[in-house]
Amino acid sequence: MSVVLRLTFITLGARDLASLRGFYQRWGWVERPGASDTFVAFDAGGVRLALYPLSLLADEAAPREALPEPGRWNGVTLAINVERRDEVHATVADAISCGASPIAPPTEREWGGCSAYVSDPEGNRWEIAWAPDHPDG
Amino acid sequence: MSVVLRLTFITLGARDLASLRGFYQRWGWVERPGASDTFVAFDAGGVRLALYPLSLLADEAAPREALPEPGRWNGVTLAINVERRDEVHATVADAISCGASPIAPPTEREWGGCSAYVSDPEGNRWEIAWAPDHPDG
Repeated sequence: MSVVLRLTFITLGARDLASLRGFYQRWGWVERPGASDTFVAFDAGGVRLALYPLSLLADEAAPREALPEPGRWNGVTLAINVERRDEVHATVADAISCGASPIAPPTEREWGGCSAYVSDPEGNRWEIAWAPDHPDG
Repeated sequence: MSVVLRLTFITLGARDLASLRGFYQRWGWVERPGASDTFVAFDAGGVRLALYPLSLLADEAAPREALPEPGRWNGVTLAINVERRDEVHATVADAISCGASPIAPPTEREWGGCSAYVSDPEGNRWEIAWAPDHPDG
């Protein structure tokens, strides 16, 4: 196999796509052209963050299973690395002002940086991290 | 806020990190330096795919919740876009030979391409997609 494995999309199954789309728009993620009532993709650096209705995503990705239960963490985290320590707090505050929920305040981590967690309106977890030795800043 | 929102990490909470790490290694994902018994990161294009023990990730990201139930889909999909249609089948077959489970065979999609789904050994879903108008191939 010569295929280069490259992660191109992270798709979140949305219970209320219009509402979740509004949250990510307010937070400042930039939508790609071609969005519809059932699909939205945001530029997220080298990868795209997509929203798709949970029931339709389940039809494709989990056709023989019950839908995930609402209100439970899904076992996955998405992270944003910021360039300066003080941007952790500012990014958290901005997300909360856009409709995110606070989960954990900025906390010193054993790996040498500082990070906080927020939840999007459907429970998807975002870590906002400052890592002094992260090659991207 | 002048912070550029850039998705830098997708972290999967692992129930058996050593085993899940072995799967991703066999499948061909390239580990970054600095891995430990509790943290592994793979280069995944413009973003990193990380594995971290589920209970430790929960301590940070969902400190007041029960752990996700095993054996349930988590509502998220990760996608790999391949350059040629025949690479969908080949990539699926390769993943399965490395320990993935088949979920959906290559299927023509209404968006004009073809995709299939597999599950990693802990139930995380991967879409292997060929999209003729995907700007990356």
